Amino acid sequence: MKETGAIPTGERAGSRKVYVAGELYPQIRVPFREVAVHPSANEPPVTIYDSSGPYTDPTVTIDITRGLPKVKSSWQLDRGDIAPVASPRDVRPEDNGHASGKHLAPRFDTSNHRVFRGVPGRPVTQLEYARAGVITPEMEYVAIRENLRREQVKSASAGEPDAALLTSTVTVTPRDGESFGAAIPDYVTPEFVRAEIARGRAIIPHNINHPEVEPMIIGRNFLVKINANIGNSAVLSSVDDEVDKLVWATRWGADNVMDLSTGRNIHNIRDWIIRNSSVPIGTVPIYQALEKVGGVAEDLTWEVYRDTLIEQAEQGVDYFTIHAGVRLPFIPLTAERVTGIVSRGGSIMAKWCLSHHRESFLYEHFADICEIMRAYDVSFSLGDGLRPGSIADANDEAQFAELRTLGELTKIAWDHGCQVMIEGPGHVPMHKIKANMDEQLKHCHEAPFYTLGPLTTDIAPGYDHITSAIGAAMIGWFGTAMLCYVTPKEHLGLPDRQDVKDGVITYKIAAHAADLAKGHPAARLHDDALSRARFEFRWEDQFNLGLDPETARKYHDATLPKEAHKTAHFCSMCGPKFCSMKISQDIRRDAQAQNDAGGSLAEAEAGMAEMSAKFRAGGGVVEVKV
Amino acid sequence: MKETGAIPTGERAGSRKVYVAGELYPQIRVPFREVAVHPSANEPPVTIYDSSGPYTDPTVTIDITRGLPKVKSSWQLDRGDIAPVASPRDVRPEDNGHASGKHLAPRFDTSNHRVFRGVPGRPVTQLEYARAGVITPEMEYVAIRENLRREQVKSASAGEPDAALLTSTVTVTPRDGESFGAAIPDYVTPEFVRAEIARGRAIIPHNINHPEVEPMIIGRNFLVKINANIGNSAVLSSVDDEVDKLVWATRWGADNVMDLSTGRNIHNIRDWIIRNSSVPIGTVPIYQALEKVGGVAEDLTWEVYRDTLIEQAEQGVDYFTIHAGVRLPFIPLTAERVTGIVSRGGSIMAKWCLSHHRESFLYEHFADICEIMRAYDVSFSLGDGLRPGSIADANDEAQFAELRTLGELTKIAWDHGCQVMIEGPGHVPMHKIKANMDEQLKHCHEAPFYTLGPLTTDIAPGYDHITSAIGAAMIGWFGTAMLCYVTPKEHLGLPDRQDVKDGVITYKIAAHAADLAKGHPAARLHDDALSRARFEFRWEDQFNLGLDPETARKYHDATLPKEAHKTAHFCSMCGPKFCSMKISQDIRRDAQAQNDAGGSLAEAEAGMAEMSAKFRAGGGVVEVKV
Repeated sequence: MKETGAIPTGERAGSRKVYVAGELYPQIRVPFREVAVHPSANEPPVTIYDSSGPYTDPTVTIDITRGLPKVKSSWQLDRGDIAPVASPRDVRPEDNGHASGKHLAPRFDTSNHRVFRGVPGRPVTQLEYARAGVITPEMEYVAIRENLRREQVKSASAGEPDAALLTSTVTVTPRDGESFGAAIPDYVTPEFVRAEIARGRAIIPHNINHPEVEPMIIGRNFLVKINANIGNSAVLSSVDDEVDKLVWATRWGADNVMDLSTGRNIHNIRDWIIRNSSVPIGTVPIYQALEKVGGVAEDLTWEVYRDTLIEQAEQGVDYFTIHAGVRLPFIPLTAERVTGIVSRGGSIMAKWCLSHHRESFLYEHFADICEIMRAYDVSFSLGDGLRPGSIADANDEAQFAELRTLGELTKIAWDHGCQVMIEGPGHVPMHKIKANMDEQLKHCHEAPFYTLGPLTTDIAPGYDHITSAIGAAMIGWFGTAMLCYVTPKEHLGLPDRQDVKDGVITYKIAAHAADLAKGHPAARLHDDALSRARFEFRWEDQFNLGLDPETARKYHDATLPKEAHKTAHFCSMCGPKFCSMKISQDIRRDAQAQNDAGGSLAEAEAGMAEMSAKFRAGGGVVEVKV
Repeated sequence: MKETGAIPTGERAGSRKVYVAGELYPQIRVPFREVAVHPSANEPPVTIYDSSGPYTDPTVTIDITRGLPKVKSSWQLDRGDIAPVASPRDVRPEDNGHASGKHLAPRFDTSNHRVFRGVPGRPVTQLEYARAGVITPEMEYVAIRENLRREQVKSASAGEPDAALLTSTVTVTPRDGESFGAAIPDYVTPEFVRAEIARGRAIIPHNINHPEVEPMIIGRNFLVKINANIGNSAVLSSVDDEVDKLVWATRWGADNVMDLSTGRNIHNIRDWIIRNSSVPIGTVPIYQALEKVGGVAEDLTWEVYRDTLIEQAEQGVDYFTIHAGVRLPFIPLTAERVTGIVSRGGSIMAKWCLSHHRESFLYEHFADICEIMRAYDVSFSLGDGLRPGSIADANDEAQFAELRTLGELTKIAWDHGCQVMIEGPGHVPMHKIKANMDEQLKHCHEAPFYTLGPLTTDIAPGYDHITSAIGAAMIGWFGTAMLCYVTPKEHLGLPDRQDVKDGVITYKIAAHAADLAKGHPAARLHDDALSRARFEFRWEDQFNLGLDPETARKYHDATLPKEAHKTAHFCSMCGPKFCSMKISQDIRRDAQAQNDAGGSLAEAEAGMAEMSAKFRAGGGVVEVKV
């Protein structure tokens, strides 16, 4: 294992880590990244959503051999809703693919990890609490987090967990967007969070056995989130690479991370990841189950799968992708596809179903799965095993038959008290994207949608972060709550560190573009602050307010490296004489200097004739109010 | 100057240069790039639009000191429509900013360049020919080019330039798309091209003094095109860099190139660019005019501008960006913008107008400009000098007031026989993009729209190729005919070679995604061929069919470099056991092997019950027709 020093730590460039305490639960400390701007701007600092965890807090000593501090309080334990598991499942040789000796990844020291599960008869999932009218610390945490330190004018009764918190009276930016029926509030209250979770329209993915997680929310009426996939494959990668990728991905803005490891050492690698992750971790349990039966899909059994669910739930995985919608009758619908079944889990289950001539054991045991997941509040990510893998296969009957099944399963999971989100495609041309969102809303009862891209063309291997960012931004706008990133290596190989960063930044762009287009009241503050910095040639502010200050600075400095250029009123793209912003500023300055008569913009808008008249009357001064 | 060897030449990876001759004009040779696939696929090669010019033809000897072969025939000369200019304008010291000695870029040897202009009383522009019912060689050229070697079943009278060519009877792919009112034909005939040009809905930008150009068409009912900007600035860059960028940009797919040079040596650099360009070259003449007056906007005059138009028209510039819509009364409308005026030409004209308290000389002399441009068939690209430079400024009154003026100017230019396209923004959030297209269609009489992006968020300096590809793909879908690329260096510095490539590839993605979504009948053939290659593990085919084979191969080989891996049924992303496509293939193979009874897909679709029955009747065989 690499030691601490190898993991990227320290504050982001130009940023400061700040925390906001809870009101209902004062022990809550919600992290933000604050970017100060140059004093000349006379502006408050900009608050940015921060998924990077303790790694960017200079006061925290990181030691990945011990794991992160446990953020979440013990209140579920205190009130008797959860209890330690008397005999947690022991690690078995097959959990790591029988790796041994030098091939066995080192074990994480789990002596500090107590395993809990829900106490029978008590609520345990956020959905159950929400339905019972309880605002949990997690709910207040995400409410504070979503507001990005915008102020709310509260009624006198605020501070109590009651409906009064819903009465937001301030809209910080004028609402400007098309939300396609979403109901994004001006200000997010804990009660709003509770209500959204109660009706299944949002989830807080967090296993009770992952107390290191900083709660976050996934739902159509909140900021659009992104997921980054990491994980070794049978061919490549190792423990230290995966922890590094996890920290790296969250440093740049990944809200969730899925560990898609296959091959050996799955269990041990996962321990390192979960214990060092401040973001929710998702997995696809069928991958490990398949390893346990030697990679032979036909040999999978419910018993092996069930054992894997418990193993992972006790470790603390926050959500499971379960491909329970890949039903036997749907498989023939893929027979004439150009690219068949492209989901790993989907193809494994299809092979199992066909070789046994039986309905999927995931579908048949769905209620059993719900009961297991409920006991730890592991959220469902109902997998789209039949998603299209090419433009030709988009929106076909196989895909939509599965989607309708996922809708049926959603109701069952809800009946068991489980939190649910729904996975979506894939490869979809632009004109077929909205139908995916519409069908999902129609058949899945507004459970959050979580899509991979979608890729809007097949012709650019090596650039599928871009082919998919187009689709991701659009479907995010239409209502998808979380976007699963695609890296430049998609279809070609396992992503490395640079690919992870490229994927995350690209998807932060897509998610933010979606927030803007939906009219999220907090979104444009960031754009406007950066654009003001740009117009005023505050180069350092422009870099620091960007998603990737280092790259922006490097690009600028490639041609104008001197410190003096950081305040220059031009860049090398156009040079000093052709900088439109400089000329615009000159125009305004000149107009201001001459504008002693104080004409207004409205008057100026009256047109040239009037302006000319004023010009004459004013003794040769164009009266432009700037 | 670099010698020939430094310019990128040779066929693209896995590709072969092929030509198709004209029928009306047999001397026409329309280039395509043909990508053969592995014989095991038993498929025809894929034909790809090819903008790379003679540089990728191994039979052509490239010598940039002599320039490219003259592609276009002398037919206009032969019929007396154009004539040599008796006394072409001589190069003057101010044309190169008075550069001298070692600061003066070397002159291109123009002894082979005869300067022509239209003969009074004769047609000269493609618009004039089209209105007169004449199908020009350029029109047949682009018709062939747009069809990508798809076959047409012709009526008996085909081969003549008449309406019979309009009767396409074959649709190669089923029409699948949403075109928002575009009228893309199944097959492009020369007559269709003529009709589209005649009504102003498409242009073939080509100065009669740029005979090296391979004609291409820009219009809503044709393939979406992309433009790459090159050009030195006062700060950086040189002749050889610019020719290299030109060839490099077209090699990767740029359909047009704009030379946005500022600073000294503008004239000489432009000679090198035009004489070596097989794609249309656009410029912004105000940049050079400003250099001629020492960079002082107030000192600009109509006479200097007029002289610059003639200078550039005689050199062979194919289209001019003219910011004639930046009228004096609109300038105050920008006063409260976050980023003011961000068009270089727009800000120059705004400064001129305000300092003189006068209407723009471009607006007042618009008819004179038309007469000059008509004489050489230089196309208008009516500039959007008041485009928004930030999300905050999108779709404001300044922008739309200018757009309406561009519509008025379009009619005037058409009255003078000139070809016209309209420039568009800029920075626009997704929900405001469609209004840009709708307003343009409404006010600009369906003249082709040519947009810069638009960028869908301001927060990602260093990644604005991506923020803008999202908007570009969308507005291309809605009807924009040409997309002006944005590189990763946007807002930060002058793009280098890698930035040019990244910008071009990103915009090829956006344009193709738009073609797919519009339902262009040729578009999906490419995606489907690549996806079949992907599904069949024809790795070399997948690389070669991609927009950037070298990068795709490099990414694949980063983890699996061996030659044997080029036929492996997996990659390092998932490894062999978890490759969904391999499992899909296994499923199909197994089903095929067992499928002696020959059940059909339709039967299979009837559902699991019937399948189970078949299974029993068939003795344990799932009857899936694959």
